[in-house]
Amino acid sequence: MAESMKGLKRTHRCTEISTANIGENVTLMGWVQKSRNKGGIIFVDLRDRSGIVQLIFENGSIDEKGFEKATKLRSEFVIAVTGVVEARSGAVNNNLKTGEIEVRANSLRILAEAETPPFPIEENSKTKEDLRLKYRFLDLRRPDIQRNLMMRSQVTTLTRQFMANEGFLEIETPMLTKSTPEGARDYLVPSRIHPGNFYALPQSPQLFKQLLMCSGYDRYIQIARCFRDEDLRADRQPEFTQIDMELSFVDVDDVIDVNERLLAYLFKQVLDVDVKLPIQRMTWQDAMDRFGSDKPDLRFGMELQNVSEVVRGCEFAVFKNALEAGGTVRGINAKGQGGMPRKKIDKLVEFAKDYGAKGLAYIAIHEDGTVKSSFAKFMTEDEMNRLVEAMDGQAGDLLLFAADKNKVVWDVLGALRLELARQMNLLDSSEYRFVWITEFPLLEWSDEENRFKAMHHPFTMPMEEDLQYIDSDPGRVRAKAYDIVLNGTEIGGGSVRIHQDDIQEKMFEVLGFTKEKAYEQFGFLLTAFKYGVPPHAGLAYGLDRLVMLMAKQESIRDVIAFPKVKDASCLMTEAPNLVDEKQLEELGIAIRSEE
Amino acid sequence: MAESMKGLKRTHRCTEISTANIGENVTLMGWVQKSRNKGGIIFVDLRDRSGIVQLIFENGSIDEKGFEKATKLRSEFVIAVTGVVEARSGAVNNNLKTGEIEVRANSLRILAEAETPPFPIEENSKTKEDLRLKYRFLDLRRPDIQRNLMMRSQVTTLTRQFMANEGFLEIETPMLTKSTPEGARDYLVPSRIHPGNFYALPQSPQLFKQLLMCSGYDRYIQIARCFRDEDLRADRQPEFTQIDMELSFVDVDDVIDVNERLLAYLFKQVLDVDVKLPIQRMTWQDAMDRFGSDKPDLRFGMELQNVSEVVRGCEFAVFKNALEAGGTVRGINAKGQGGMPRKKIDKLVEFAKDYGAKGLAYIAIHEDGTVKSSFAKFMTEDEMNRLVEAMDGQAGDLLLFAADKNKVVWDVLGALRLELARQMNLLDSSEYRFVWITEFPLLEWSDEENRFKAMHHPFTMPMEEDLQYIDSDPGRVRAKAYDIVLNGTEIGGGSVRIHQDDIQEKMFEVLGFTKEKAYEQFGFLLTAFKYGVPPHAGLAYGLDRLVMLMAKQESIRDVIAFPKVKDASCLMTEAPNLVDEKQLEELGIAIRSEE
Repeated sequence: MAESMKGLKRTHRCTEISTANIGENVTLMGWVQKSRNKGGIIFVDLRDRSGIVQLIFENGSIDEKGFEKATKLRSEFVIAVTGVVEARSGAVNNNLKTGEIEVRANSLRILAEAETPPFPIEENSKTKEDLRLKYRFLDLRRPDIQRNLMMRSQVTTLTRQFMANEGFLEIETPMLTKSTPEGARDYLVPSRIHPGNFYALPQSPQLFKQLLMCSGYDRYIQIARCFRDEDLRADRQPEFTQIDMELSFVDVDDVIDVNERLLAYLFKQVLDVDVKLPIQRMTWQDAMDRFGSDKPDLRFGMELQNVSEVVRGCEFAVFKNALEAGGTVRGINAKGQGGMPRKKIDKLVEFAKDYGAKGLAYIAIHEDGTVKSSFAKFMTEDEMNRLVEAMDGQAGDLLLFAADKNKVVWDVLGALRLELARQMNLLDSSEYRFVWITEFPLLEWSDEENRFKAMHHPFTMPMEEDLQYIDSDPGRVRAKAYDIVLNGTEIGGGSVRIHQDDIQEKMFEVLGFTKEKAYEQFGFLLTAFKYGVPPHAGLAYGLDRLVMLMAKQESIRDVIAFPKVKDASCLMTEAPNLVDEKQLEELGIAIRSEE
Repeated sequence: MAESMKGLKRTHRCTEISTANIGENVTLMGWVQKSRNKGGIIFVDLRDRSGIVQLIFENGSIDEKGFEKATKLRSEFVIAVTGVVEARSGAVNNNLKTGEIEVRANSLRILAEAETPPFPIEENSKTKEDLRLKYRFLDLRRPDIQRNLMMRSQVTTLTRQFMANEGFLEIETPMLTKSTPEGARDYLVPSRIHPGNFYALPQSPQLFKQLLMCSGYDRYIQIARCFRDEDLRADRQPEFTQIDMELSFVDVDDVIDVNERLLAYLFKQVLDVDVKLPIQRMTWQDAMDRFGSDKPDLRFGMELQNVSEVVRGCEFAVFKNALEAGGTVRGINAKGQGGMPRKKIDKLVEFAKDYGAKGLAYIAIHEDGTVKSSFAKFMTEDEMNRLVEAMDGQAGDLLLFAADKNKVVWDVLGALRLELARQMNLLDSSEYRFVWITEFPLLEWSDEENRFKAMHHPFTMPMEEDLQYIDSDPGRVRAKAYDIVLNGTEIGGGSVRIHQDDIQEKMFEVLGFTKEKAYEQFGFLLTAFKYGVPPHAGLAYGLDRLVMLMAKQESIRDVIAFPKVKDASCLMTEAPNLVDEKQLEELGIAIRSEE
C-alpha cells in the first residue's frame, strides 16, 4: 500500500548532503538501489538523479513500526526518509560522493512499492537494448543515461543563453507545413478539413529561417525537431533535433566567429575542455587530398599521398589503367604495421572492397628491410624504391595503395585510414579535435540524372571569384559552404545564401530548373526575395550527434529520452499502431489492400 | 542589380547609435522605410528590427555615383550605408529613439532592390488579415509584430533560464508517437515501413512527462509543440506551444510556489510589472458562485448574488420553476446602468440567450428611485424590495437575473458580467490580475455517455479528505487540480497525479473503465507505475495565449510567426497541398473517392 507524502517536504537531494550536514535532521526521497540486513541493522542505498546516499535503520533510532517497514524494502521501492546525518560508522566509500556519511533514519514512509524490474538498474548495462527500450522508463533510471540527458539539457540551456546574449531570437517555425518534392522523403499528415491534401513534417526549417531573414529578424535560432522518412541506417532517427540558426548582413567569417565562440563556451562549461580558437580551417579539396574525407579525424596523421606522378609509366596494370582513365593512385603509410600477418592484410583488402575499391596494393617493409609486396613483380626495382621513398616508407611500415577514380580512391583510403587508426589505437578519446571544412564544390554531377545537382541546396552562394566559371566549367565553382567537424564526425554545416536575383537565376539554369519548376518548388521563398532580401547565411548542428560526442557515447539513442529503433517503431509505446477505421474515414483516406 | 556586401561590416543596428556617437563613422544595414528628395537632399528612413534612423544623402558628402544611387532608393530596398553620425539638422523627432541624430552618408550600396509591396509596412496595419497572411514575410516586417515575436523569444529564454536555476531539466519527448482513442482528435502520420499503421502527433507530452518522473528525472520542463485536429474556433491553432512541466516529490503548494515566482520573474523582466506574491487563490466553487466562471476576471467586481432564498415562494413562474427543478436564481448589479435604454437591455437578453438562458429578468432603478422591471407584476412590493436590497440596488443601478440549472445560470451571468464590463469600460488594460483556481471537481457527469468523466484526466489526484465520497457521491469529490488565470483568461493548469495503485484502480472503476480498457489506452504508463512511481504533479501553460496577453494582442495569430487560418491552412505556403500518387503508394494509403 502506498503512503501519502502529506506533511512531508524533501530537504535535500541524496548527494546534496555532506559532512557539513552532520547532526542535521534531513528528509530525503528517492528509490531503493539496494537494501541489506546486516546483524539486525538495515542498510539501504537511496538513489535519486543526483546519486546515492546510505541510510541506516536500527531499532531504537526508529520506532518498531518504522523498522518493521524497513525490513520490507526492496529494490526500486520509492521511499521518504527522515533522519540524522552522521559520519559513516563503517569504512568510508570513496566511490560515492556521499561516501563519508550516512543517514540514521528516524522515520520512513513507503511512497510506492515496486515489482522486481526485468533488468537491474545499473551503469553500463549488459541488458539487450531491445529489452531496455521496451522498458525505457526503467532504462532511463540508469545513472549513465541520466547523466547523458542532464548533459543534453545543459547543452541546450547554455546554447540558448549564449545565443540570446549574441542577439539571436528564438522563433518557432511550423511543424505542419508543405511537402516539397526534392530532397529526402517527407512524413505526411493527412488533412481532415481538406480531404486528399496533406501537410508535411519539416525536414528542416530552412525555407522558414530564410524567410525570417527576409522579414528583418536579423538573427534567428531554434532548437528544432526535424523529420526524415528514410530507411534508418545504423544511427539515424526518424525525428531528430537541430540547433538551427540564420544571420543577416554577414559573410562566412561572421558565422564561423559566433559558432567558434559558442562551441568553446559549451565545451568549457559542460566538459571543462578548452577549445583553442580560432579553430583550424581546411578547404574541401585539402581535406579530400590529405584525408580522403570531408570530415577528417585530425587526432592522428597517416595522410594520403598522391603518388600518381611517381608511378606514371610503370607496368602495373591496376595503376596504369586508373591513370589512363583519368584517375589517380594514392597511398597511406601505416607506420609500424610492416609485420602485419597476411591474413590481416587480406581483411583490409576486403574492407577496401566494401568501399568500392577493386583491390588494394600493398608494400610491407619488414624490420630487416626486406620488402613484401602484392605488385613488386610488375615494377622495376627503381620504380619500387621511388614509390617507397615518396611514401616515406621506413623499416616496419605498411604502405597501402588504391588506384581508381578520385572519388573511389578517397573513399577507400579515407575509410582505411580510420580503420587502421582503430586497430592501431591512435584515437585519443580524451581529445576533442575540431576543424572547419570550407570551399565545398557548389555542384556535384549526378550520373543518374545526367545533370549537376546542388551539393548543399539551390540557395547556396558560389564564391565570387569562381562565378566566372559557372557556364564554362560549373564543376569547378566552389561554394560559400562550411561544415564543422569534430573527431571525424560532421556536427554541423551551413552556407551563405544567394540573395542576388541574377545569381539565383543562373543557379537554377545550371541545375536545369525552368522558372516554372523553381516556382513550383520554392514559390513563396522566391516571391519573398522580390521584396528586399538581405545578405544572409546560416548553420545547423545535429544536436543528437553533438551531445553523443560530448558524452562519449556510441549511439544517439543513448542521448535521446525515447528513441525509435531501426524500423522506426517505438518499442515502449508500440507506435506506430493501427487506428480506428472511423479516424481514416474522417481523413478521407483508406489503407491500400495488398495487391 | 544587387551589390555584394563584400568588405563591409555592420557596426551598429539602426537605433544602437545616439548622440554619444556623434562624429563617428558607422556602417548600417537595413530596409528603406521611406525616402524623399527635399531640395536636392535625400532623406531616407532606414529600418531594422531595432527601429529607425534617418540618413542624409547630399552631393559632396557622398560622391556623384553614390548620390545617383540614392535617388533610386524606394521602400523596402535593402541597403548598406556608411556615414557620419551628426546632430539632427532639422527638428528633433521625439517619436524616434534616434530622433536627435541623423547619419550623413558617404557611401551606399544597394544590397537588394524591392518591388512595391502589396500593402504598406506599418504598425497597426489596416490591411485585411488574409492578404497579410498570404504575404506573411512582409507582414512580419511590421514593427508591432516584430515586437511581439521578440517578446515571445524573451519569454521563452527567461523561462528556460529561471527553470534551469530551479533544477528543471529540459527533456525532449517524441513527436511521432502513439494514437490514443480518448481526448481530442489526433493528427495521424502514416508509416511507410509499417503500412496500415499510423503515428499520432502529440496533443501534449502528458504521458511522457509522467514517465520521466517515474524514471527519476525529478523536475522536467519542455517548451513543447502540441497538436489537436479540432475544428478551429475563433482563436485556436492546429499546432500550439506549451510550457510544460512536471515535478516529483511535491504537493499543490510546491507547484504553485515555483510557478508564482516564475510568473513574477517574467512580468518583471519583460514588462517591468510587479506581481504581488502570493497570488490570490480561489476555490472553483467560489469562482463559480461569485463570478460564474472558472476563469474569473478580477479586475472588476460585479459579483453574482445567489437570491434563491430571497425569491423562494414568489409567484414569478421563471424563478419558481427554476427553484423547483433544483436550480437557482442569481443576479448581478450593473452599477449606474439603471438608465440603459430598453433596446440595449433587449440586446443583453439576446446575448444571455446565446449562452443558454431562456430569458433574462431585470430591474432598472432610475435615478429618481422609480423602478422598471420585466417581472414586477408577478411579485409583491415587499418581495421586490427584499430582492433589490439583497442585490444592494441603489438609484441608477440595473439588476439582471438568471434562473435555471446552476451551470446555465453561471454561464449566462458570467458572460454577461464580462459583456457589461466591456460596455462600461471597467477593464483596465494596464492591470495584470492573477488568480489561482483550486479544488476543481474531480469528475463531471456526461449526459451523453451517462457516466462520470474525468474533468482533467484519469490520473488527477482526488483531495484526501474527499476520498470517502468516491463511491457514495463521486460528484462531490474535489481534485488536486489548479488553473492559473490572468485577466479572465486561463493561461495554465495542472494537477497532482495519482501515484497510489489503489486510488488509481478506484478512479478507473468510477470512470467505468475495465482493467483491459485502461491498459489498452494507458498501458505503458500503468506498467511503468508498477516499478516504483514517486508522488508527482505538473502544470502546463499555453505559451501563445500567455504572450498574447503580455503583448496586449487580441489574437494568438499576432504572436505566432507563421500561423494558420480557420480552416487549418497556411495562406503563405498553401499547406496542406496535394502530393504525388507515388508518395501515397509508398505509404500504403489511398484517397477515398467521394461516394
